[in-house]
Amino acid sequence: MIGADVHDITRRVARNDNKEEMEMERKVEFLRNCWYVAALSRDVGGEDMFHRRILDTSVLLYRKADGEAVALHDRCPHRFAPLHLGRRVGDDVVCAYHALRFDCSGACTHNPHGNGLIPKAAKVRSFPLLEKYGFIWIWMGEQAADPSLLPDFGVLDDGHPNALAHTYMHMDVNYELIIDNVMDLSHIDHVHSEIISTRGRLSPLVPRVREDANAVNARWEWSQTPAMLIFADFLPAPAAEARHFFDITWTPPASIQLSVGALQDGRQLDLGNCVGQYDLHTATPESATSTHYFFATRRNHKVEDAAYNEMKIRAMHAAFENEDGPVIQATQDEMGTTDFFSLNPVLMSNDIAAVRVRKLLKKLIESERAGELRAVG
Amino acid sequence: MIGADVHDITRRVARNDNKEEMEMERKVEFLRNCWYVAALSRDVGGEDMFHRRILDTSVLLYRKADGEAVALHDRCPHRFAPLHLGRRVGDDVVCAYHALRFDCSGACTHNPHGNGLIPKAAKVRSFPLLEKYGFIWIWMGEQAADPSLLPDFGVLDDGHPNALAHTYMHMDVNYELIIDNVMDLSHIDHVHSEIISTRGRLSPLVPRVREDANAVNARWEWSQTPAMLIFADFLPAPAAEARHFFDITWTPPASIQLSVGALQDGRQLDLGNCVGQYDLHTATPESATSTHYFFATRRNHKVEDAAYNEMKIRAMHAAFENEDGPVIQATQDEMGTTDFFSLNPVLMSNDIAAVRVRKLLKKLIESERAGELRAVG
Amino acid sequence: MIGADVHDITRRVARNDNKEEMEMERKVEFLRNCWYVAALSRDVGGEDMFHRRILDTSVLLYRKADGEAVALHDRCPHRFAPLHLGRRVGDDVVCAYHALRFDCSGACTHNPHGNGLIPKAAKVRSFPLLEKYGFIWIWMGEQAADPSLLPDFGVLDDGHPNALAHTYMHMDVNYELIIDNVMDLSHIDHVHSEIISTRGRLSPLVPRVREDANAVNARWEWSQTPAMLIFADFLPAPAAEARHFFDITWTPPASIQLSVGALQDGRQLDLGNCVGQYDLHTATPESATSTHYFFATRRNHKVEDAAYNEMKIRAMHAAFENEDGPVIQATQDEMGTTDFFSLNPVLMSNDIAAVRVRKLLKKLIESERAGELRAVG
Repeated sequence: MIGADVHDITRRVARNDNKEEMEMERKVEFLRNCWYVAALSRDVGGEDMFHRRILDTSVLLYRKADGEAVALHDRCPHRFAPLHLGRRVGDDVVCAYHALRFDCSGACTHNPHGNGLIPKAAKVRSFPLLEKYGFIWIWMGEQAADPSLLPDFGVLDDGHPNALAHTYMHMDVNYELIIDNVMDLSHIDHVHSEIISTRGRLSPLVPRVREDANAVNARWEWSQTPAMLIFADFLPAPAAEARHFFDITWTPPASIQLSVGALQDGRQLDLGNCVGQYDLHTATPESATSTHYFFATRRNHKVEDAAYNEMKIRAMHAAFENEDGPVIQATQDEMGTTDFFSLNPVLMSNDIAAVRVRKLLKKLIESERAGELRAVG
Repeated sequence: MIGADVHDITRRVARNDNKEEMEMERKVEFLRNCWYVAALSRDVGGEDMFHRRILDTSVLLYRKADGEAVALHDRCPHRFAPLHLGRRVGDDVVCAYHALRFDCSGACTHNPHGNGLIPKAAKVRSFPLLEKYGFIWIWMGEQAADPSLLPDFGVLDDGHPNALAHTYMHMDVNYELIIDNVMDLSHIDHVHSEIISTRGRLSPLVPRVREDANAVNARWEWSQTPAMLIFADFLPAPAAEARHFFDITWTPPASIQLSVGALQDGRQLDLGNCVGQYDLHTATPESATSTHYFFATRRNHKVEDAAYNEMKIRAMHAAFENEDGPVIQATQDEMGTTDFFSLNPVLMSNDIAAVRVRKLLKKLIESERAGELRAVG
Repeated sequence: MIGADVHDITRRVARNDNKEEMEMERKVEFLRNCWYVAALSRDVGGEDMFHRRILDTSVLLYRKADGEAVALHDRCPHRFAPLHLGRRVGDDVVCAYHALRFDCSGACTHNPHGNGLIPKAAKVRSFPLLEKYGFIWIWMGEQAADPSLLPDFGVLDDGHPNALAHTYMHMDVNYELIIDNVMDLSHIDHVHSEIISTRGRLSPLVPRVREDANAVNARWEWSQTPAMLIFADFLPAPAAEARHFFDITWTPPASIQLSVGALQDGRQLDLGNCVGQYDLHTATPESATSTHYFFATRRNHKVEDAAYNEMKIRAMHAAFENEDGPVIQATQDEMGTTDFFSLNPVLMSNDIAAVRVRKLLKKLIESERAGELRAVG
């Protein structure tokens, strides 16, 4: 398709290891025909012109009078001014520069210039959205949006509102470093403080990992005394031993559903029987080196306590921003946009799930890209 | 000429529109054998070493004892220290690093090293200047400077000093976005406040556009009630209808002469018969994405009022910095250095003049560049 | 070896000189199989995890319990987190992210994951160090470190501690601009203040320059009245004429030993007979456009005066930071990474030594690089 492809990947000899390794500086490609979170539902308000870059593209998000969220390319097709600088007229947006008006499908509905005819090309791209689980999900690809590709995270919807929380963090790192961090839970004893420690029980475990065409699942089970401190007080015997599990499932492009719980009787070790929580971590690339990181959590204990709910979100921010965050940021600064595998990472038992995700995601992106190249000819 | 030319233009598939569009990231080339404004005359003072980047080149501007302005490449040919760090000795400049001394033609006049012989290569490039209309104009090209290529803006010189004002603004945008803004006056009702509003009369008009080998002219005529507020109070019947005109002429590389006026009798609609003003907008590229924007204006009413004169310039700054400026800056941020036409802009009646300028300027640059490549072989 | 090499050097036609000159934008290569200063000895403390980029590589420096300094690549081979974020355990370092532990040879000594086996690839590159003359010297190349390649600067070690001082400055310039500055001492009368002035005697002199396979030496001798002010008060007749010398020797990659002294009798003009000082200037590239600049000095007068010692270092900082520094920084900004010789510098008698250093260093780098390319195949 494009001759410039020969430039997409350049090689350099990195001399900073004992052997000459071939580091690949890559042009980062994203999976496109899939659902990313564009925003927390609560962040796109009634009359706002919310805007954000997603996959290196400027996106305008707003709500129609009936509350439905819409997304347009945040770029007027006339002179390329961002539409968010303009104003709302009902469900339409009017460009700040020359007052072209577009409806929420991106069609031009008013041209104040000349004879007022609307040029055929005066069309803004609109992006399909789904609003579910407290998030606005966006489809950035060219293929028809497929709602069935959004996994079922319905557990988030089910229960007391004070047991559910959502949050957002911006990070200047590649989104795969955030996926790595969650897929490899062995880091928690090393990076995090006492509150979510497994007291060294997790690292020696090799998780059971299962993979299918569109998911990678990992599961750890262990016992510890006392239970993880976030759960101990809600168990029958806070100071006693408890069985625990982590169960995490990555689905493309960048969502990880994580369940964790503790139990002190002989029932099956699943969230229904445990004191535990159901989390969703999902990462949306802003660019190759910056990410919108979204998080939701529902717990099954102390469900009516709004203050506890707020404390839980503050603790999640503190853990990520003070503990994981600096390490991940420093790793990004060290790696730049060099391809992960070209750096010959040492792979260990704790990497099995994370590496399967990287490989499956890479395969899905290459497959999508090959399809595009065939389509363009 | 140079093998690297194959890298000048790369293509990428931009997926941010419904169809796959071919956006061209371009290496920005400038027209060089022509006159750009280097500085306001008043900004280059008696003993100053004024320096500024113009077309990506460091330029030193200063005045000789007799007041004549001179321009040198702001780079010592010895070790490449900027000459503006040095000091003046009469009409010469002495480099701060090793004290080589150059006269205002760029010839080395003193070498304190070794036997003191002046190396043949010890020469600084000097740039031809013309000082006219309150500006210092510079010729950055390799061909002989041709004073006849500077258009006649003599109206600026003719009249009371308190009816004439000059100003300068720096913008981090490509200079063609500033030209676009002035060439397409339909934006004024949408971007600007009441004071220069045409009350919606301008957008529906299709300007008369004329083009020759070295100029693009556009003219609008309309009536409105009351007249534009900047003129109404100086007309016989401030609240009544008035006929108006805009007449703008772009000349290469980046000067736009704009006349505007209002009239309430049956005479011919030209500046001589109107209450109006004669403006010059002229843009000098600092780099591909930053611009020195110069402006001069002469009005034919309230000509002795110095305070009014100052208010006019403040209003021009406020309009540009608060109204056009943010839109143009956001457009730059959205476009980067992507070629305008490769983005498939929707073209409308209000774009006729601006697009003709872009196309003529592009043709002139390509023609100059082809000549250079032939010359280099 | 690598196809991408064709991109290493691109050419552009620079139109900012009277003739079309071919400026080469170069990929900066460094000499690697040699000794650079990594740090002042005093800057790497007992329990510190000192880190710094050297030749575009992240380096961790620390001291073992026995005081020996060690250097590791500051990048865990597992997930590429910088090791300096971790913690010390005895002479080992533990990665902050997943707690892999490495000894000071870079060997992994503990893996808390899975079965605890240590992957064969879990190895951090270590860099040979030499600690001499108050500096920690590092060998960044792939060949075996050769201590005999570190020149003898033993004069620094010999004498009263209050006559010896070391310092460090960071500069956002290419390291060769710093070498140029020291190799061409003719600048001192033009850039610096009275205190080290030769009163114009130096510039007219053509130094005697000698070059061998691994060194460039330059020597100036002159008389002035009074002596350089830094020495005059320590001479028998402070106001009288004195003979002076500068003797400087560059050795690869970037060390310049400078001796300077003044004498008022008929003995041989060398440091042993003079009031003078023995300096070492040495520059370590952080990147192509930033440099760690280290300096040491030993004087042979007022040797017990600690306050004078401190004043001398403050004066060195003031001279460099206020006088040379701004000129060198501005020169860097003007040159970018354009190759020095491609800019056709005017070469004068004062450039002889500096230009020989540039040419010899270039030859050594090209030779080393050619060897590497042959080795890689």
